[in-house]
Amino acid sequence: MAEPSSKALDGLRVKIDAVDQELLQLLRRRLDLVAEVGAIKHKDGVPIYAPKREASMLAKRRAEAEAMGIPPQLIEDLLRRMMRESYISENDVGFKRIHPTLGPVVIVGGAGKLGQVFANLFGLSGYEVRILDKADWARAPQLLADAGAVVISVPIEATCEVIERLPPLPVDCLLVDLTSIKQGPLAAMLRVHPGPVLGLHPMFGPDVSSLAKQVVVVCHGRAEAKYQWLLEQIQIWGARLHEAPASEHDQAMQLVQAMRHFTAFVYGLHLKREHADIEQLLQFSSPIYRLELAMVGRLFAQDPSLYADIIFAQPDALARARHYLQRYQEALALLEAGDKAGFCDSFAEVAEWFGDFAEQFRSESANMLMVANDSRSV
Amino acid sequence: MAEPSSKALDGLRVKIDAVDQELLQLLRRRLDLVAEVGAIKHKDGVPIYAPKREASMLAKRRAEAEAMGIPPQLIEDLLRRMMRESYISENDVGFKRIHPTLGPVVIVGGAGKLGQVFANLFGLSGYEVRILDKADWARAPQLLADAGAVVISVPIEATCEVIERLPPLPVDCLLVDLTSIKQGPLAAMLRVHPGPVLGLHPMFGPDVSSLAKQVVVVCHGRAEAKYQWLLEQIQIWGARLHEAPASEHDQAMQLVQAMRHFTAFVYGLHLKREHADIEQLLQFSSPIYRLELAMVGRLFAQDPSLYADIIFAQPDALARARHYLQRYQEALALLEAGDKAGFCDSFAEVAEWFGDFAEQFRSESANMLMVANDSRSV
Repeated sequence: MAEPSSKALDGLRVKIDAVDQELLQLLRRRLDLVAEVGAIKHKDGVPIYAPKREASMLAKRRAEAEAMGIPPQLIEDLLRRMMRESYISENDVGFKRIHPTLGPVVIVGGAGKLGQVFANLFGLSGYEVRILDKADWARAPQLLADAGAVVISVPIEATCEVIERLPPLPVDCLLVDLTSIKQGPLAAMLRVHPGPVLGLHPMFGPDVSSLAKQVVVVCHGRAEAKYQWLLEQIQIWGARLHEAPASEHDQAMQLVQAMRHFTAFVYGLHLKREHADIEQLLQFSSPIYRLELAMVGRLFAQDPSLYADIIFAQPDALARARHYLQRYQEALALLEAGDKAGFCDSFAEVAEWFGDFAEQFRSESANMLMVANDSRSV
Repeated sequence: MAEPSSKALDGLRVKIDAVDQELLQLLRRRLDLVAEVGAIKHKDGVPIYAPKREASMLAKRRAEAEAMGIPPQLIEDLLRRMMRESYISENDVGFKRIHPTLGPVVIVGGAGKLGQVFANLFGLSGYEVRILDKADWARAPQLLADAGAVVISVPIEATCEVIERLPPLPVDCLLVDLTSIKQGPLAAMLRVHPGPVLGLHPMFGPDVSSLAKQVVVVCHGRAEAKYQWLLEQIQIWGARLHEAPASEHDQAMQLVQAMRHFTAFVYGLHLKREHADIEQLLQFSSPIYRLELAMVGRLFAQDPSLYADIIFAQPDALARARHYLQRYQEALALLEAGDKAGFCDSFAEVAEWFGDFAEQFRSESANMLMVANDSRSV
């Protein structure tokens, strides 16, 4: 490289570094302002996620960017990343308590990971939280005697059994579960408890840093008016509610949850049996194959019994899995016959069925793949 | 909400907006500086992606962030996103031409999407580019008579046939292909051309905005010294080279490419046949299920014959697909028998085989899922 160019490059890099240091100063100021916002929201019980404010703010910045010749998507992506941090920091200030007179919240299975997330959120909102885990059953009647709400957060398989074992609860006490199937647990809760009953499915793992923008599925049980406070509380935590009948929820879960886990499990098993060399596969991997591999591999960093529960507990999972086998065999027959035209016909048929969603998924995933590529390093 | 709080909130939001507008000013300055860097890199032929400079810059900013109480991952993510834009903008300035005396570069299949990407890159680097597409075969001898390099970029299935049809090339001309399988095309090229031969597999789709950090697999053919210029040129475009024997490449591709496409195809077929309601599934979807669905659905926004080619052209794909079927049946038997313990045993066995990669994949995908959640809106 020519000496003068190298010097010019160094000079420019010093300037870029200075810009980036100014960016740090801006971030510090922004985080401080956001903390002040959090304190006010806490006092007033305003949800941490304000979709309208967010959308209008993004639209304004995009327009300003465009006028300055800056790609609008750049400022949107940067602001969205900064907002994630804001949501996390709002956790630190705590949340407004919506039901000031509620008795203690008892988390059954509160030593589990998801139970801890909710124990923490209730605690941050000023409720008295009690944990009732396996070892505490002898003290259950005493822990539950004056409970305002009982939250069941135990492995799927144990949910109904645990519900049946509960001692009688105060008549106004809310009984609520967090299981990822809803029909069985909801029926069991309605059977054992004559008071308010609610089924929830938090659609996120215990590793979320904030509930902002996460979805909680709501399956109504009994005496809706008596648990409105909890639905409001969950929204203050930042989550979005999606109401659905338990049967509809369970059916969707078989397709997107049980079957995806099951086929990912089979793919992992397949890779192992084919003696795949993961190191080598990664060397060859484009962002998309790396992501595909990560989506399979991530399963195996987790608790087998969690996945076994999800798959084995879905009443229709077996039938679905058998159907999938038929489709696999059907597709394999095309491969065996070298029937490329038949493959393309089936493909087109499925594409038509996906309709506009196919393009939406393509563009969504394209953005994810760019992010995946951003984080590459040698 | 209390009136004073609402006013205080409004005041803070005005301040946050002002910070974000300062951010736009910073971005504008940064993009201008980066454009100057690009101009110098162009002149000197410096690769647009400088991994060491990037890593050391990120490390410094992370340390500074930490000292200021700013989460280091926040500044890293923001800078990585900004760097993506820099790489794209460096495309505008063009690239240094590494081989100034090379004759015209003829792109066979240059009207296709990937062919266009390369035609564009060669053009931006000052080479004379000629397109030889289906309609131009009559003029092939004339277009190829003084070619310095011939780049084959046609559908997999047609690759070997097209290579065989080539008229004799100038003896020093480089013959190179971009197909996603390598053994067949490489052998065909070595057969028809006595001069320099090179097999490449660009591990990215034609929708990439820049080659920065993308991987190009290099399978050496003949007379390496005579195509060093091209390998250097590709690195200037920002890509990373990964050298591998063609057979090793093809085997890895069967596992990560053909089989993933095939099982995604089956999953799409399955969803259709189960009459899944995509709209409804999305309502229920956590970031992870949404991503899983997007990874399946994205396939169907694309050209069926592209996927048919990839799947049907892999010589061992059929055997692999049959093996997968066995593993599926094996797993299904566990489900049929309600054998949760057996499932957990298999799971643990695969987890052990994944080893540290499982945790690596979990944390990589966790980051992606946070990004997916960032971009949610109601």
